[in-house]
Amino acid sequence: MEKIMNNETNIINFTRGVPPVDAFPTRQIQECSTSVLDAYSSTILQYRPSQGFIPLREWIGEKYGVSTDNVLVSNGSLQIQVFLSAVLAQSGDVVLVEEPSYDRAITAYRKNDLEVIGVPLEDDGFNLEVLEMLVVEKKPKFFYIIPDFQNPSGIVTSKAKRESLVNLAEEYNFYILEDNPYKELRYWGEDIPSIYSSGSEKVFFFSSFSKVLSPGLRVGYVVGPVEAIKQAAKIAEDTYITPSMLSQGIVYEFCRRGWLEPGIERLRDLYRPKLVTLISSLEENLPEARWTKPDGGFFVGVYLPQGINMSDIRSRGLDVGLKLSDGAGFYADGSGDSFLRLPFCALSENEIEEGIRRLGLLMG
Amino acid sequence: MEKIMNNETNIINFTRGVPPVDAFPTRQIQECSTSVLDAYSSTILQYRPSQGFIPLREWIGEKYGVSTDNVLVSNGSLQIQVFLSAVLAQSGDVVLVEEPSYDRAITAYRKNDLEVIGVPLEDDGFNLEVLEMLVVEKKPKFFYIIPDFQNPSGIVTSKAKRESLVNLAEEYNFYILEDNPYKELRYWGEDIPSIYSSGSEKVFFFSSFSKVLSPGLRVGYVVGPVEAIKQAAKIAEDTYITPSMLSQGIVYEFCRRGWLEPGIERLRDLYRPKLVTLISSLEENLPEARWTKPDGGFFVGVYLPQGINMSDIRSRGLDVGLKLSDGAGFYADGSGDSFLRLPFCALSENEIEEGIRRLGLLMG
Repeated sequence: MEKIMNNETNIINFTRGVPPVDAFPTRQIQECSTSVLDAYSSTILQYRPSQGFIPLREWIGEKYGVSTDNVLVSNGSLQIQVFLSAVLAQSGDVVLVEEPSYDRAITAYRKNDLEVIGVPLEDDGFNLEVLEMLVVEKKPKFFYIIPDFQNPSGIVTSKAKRESLVNLAEEYNFYILEDNPYKELRYWGEDIPSIYSSGSEKVFFFSSFSKVLSPGLRVGYVVGPVEAIKQAAKIAEDTYITPSMLSQGIVYEFCRRGWLEPGIERLRDLYRPKLVTLISSLEENLPEARWTKPDGGFFVGVYLPQGINMSDIRSRGLDVGLKLSDGAGFYADGSGDSFLRLPFCALSENEIEEGIRRLGLLMG
Repeated sequence: MEKIMNNETNIINFTRGVPPVDAFPTRQIQECSTSVLDAYSSTILQYRPSQGFIPLREWIGEKYGVSTDNVLVSNGSLQIQVFLSAVLAQSGDVVLVEEPSYDRAITAYRKNDLEVIGVPLEDDGFNLEVLEMLVVEKKPKFFYIIPDFQNPSGIVTSKAKRESLVNLAEEYNFYILEDNPYKELRYWGEDIPSIYSSGSEKVFFFSSFSKVLSPGLRVGYVVGPVEAIKQAAKIAEDTYITPSMLSQGIVYEFCRRGWLEPGIERLRDLYRPKLVTLISSLEENLPEARWTKPDGGFFVGVYLPQGINMSDIRSRGLDVGLKLSDGAGFYADGSGDSFLRLPFCALSENEIEEGIRRLGLLMG
């Protein structure tokens, strides 16, 4: 074990999908805070309607070509998953997620007493045959999908599958909850249009400023059909009256000043070499495993060789300063023991190299 | 009708318990925002544990003589009512509230499928005999009480009743949810110690910075036994991962600089003459009605004479530029047609005088 740790004493943490501290534009956020309070203090410091800060809803509405009535802004987008899943589904209803999927969304749906069933992921997105079968047999209320640089796998859903999904949703009358916070963090290759851009009334588009600006500000949003948005806003009002207004004001001011796109470009430059390093480290140290090769986002998903005991690897990892996630939380059926999510944005290239070297030795 | 409106064209709104815009210390909040981001950007802009910003939890802990483990800070205190009521009571359980009580708390409990029963309020607080009877017969999980300048009545619970309540809670094993956001807004007379200060492990103390600093920042907190606080924090994590950190940082910085107490003193000076004006206007214009005479807070509760049709008054009020609340929302049993909540802090003295003059004419 000493040999494994010899050139690195720090603990290397591969568990949290968070941005690095140097991603935060602190000075700009300070300026935006002062400025938006100069312009809007009587709104921002007051109780206001639950649907969110109107100038920000206007900005988001313009971005997606809809009215402010189609936009709800909340304290992070997970909170909106809680609200909207309560609008779209009742206790006992079936909902579908990708398998693996974002563990916190699965937990949120279960808290609302929904039955969560997973649709296996392939390299180009969900398995279409399984999805069709589940749609027919289980009559789900919605399918939750992260089509770009999926959390936890990094996979991108193909254009063809996006189109098939919309057709299925129209035919079998279920909603699509498209969660797309990583979409703009593409490091190379060509963007695929969002599912929401199909124009189908079956699609809700979720995103947030957590990955492209700051998670601590807690500003997420959903864009979708007016009636459901209104119902979600009523649940929001009953929950917290008013969302956190200053954060929404800061985000608005940041966008209004045209700082978002250059900020995202800076993040792409910051994260791209980390992903390159992770992929090459995996090639060098984990020849037996299979992993995704994302073009963006926060995660690479590793599928370990059969027979590997992941809980043993996790436990031995702690002894050599390597923290790894349990894959089971990402699988609706609790399987996923051979799945390993590797978030890379918060680590330095040295840490990534050293961490994967340690992982290779543990598995070797 | 024209006669009623002759010396005032504005609509006078007696429906919302909000601070006036001139209550907000915008410059100070701007300074605190810049300053706390200088000191804590890597914490405030990041994902953090759900229990809240640690320096603020320390400040609150010191104020109440407890550890940070006893403190949960969230996006407003209503949100914590949602979390904590889910920890303390299960679907179908009975919980008690004062009657009338804060309508949003009643709604929150009902959303968690709790059965809400009201305990009638008297001039010195809840009817003790009814409370005792309900405690024995209904075995409630908790009693929700706003002991100081209650929303919506303005009533203060006497010291004797606070003590009886703690004894009952200990004997019959139910919790007390003490919601006390108006406590420090006492305009005259002597403070009565909080129920929480009894030291009983049955009491949770809720408060917020909405009434003493700014509602739009959305910072509320609860202080109470560690195990339940921990469980509430887990629900918070499953709901929004991290609360709105910048708001909590600003509140902390505001308190650390010693600005809170002078700020509250300024608010007392701002609100005191409004309450005086409201009471004297009621004496002059509503001789037939009965009303509370609070020593602080945001509200006077008016009990209208028997036979008055309040929905008719509300509707005729709109014709003469007077907006009044429906009392029914404040009563768990949906009665309350003769109850009128009069919030006064956001109105000018002229508006208060004119509004009550219009009300008197409508009832005359």
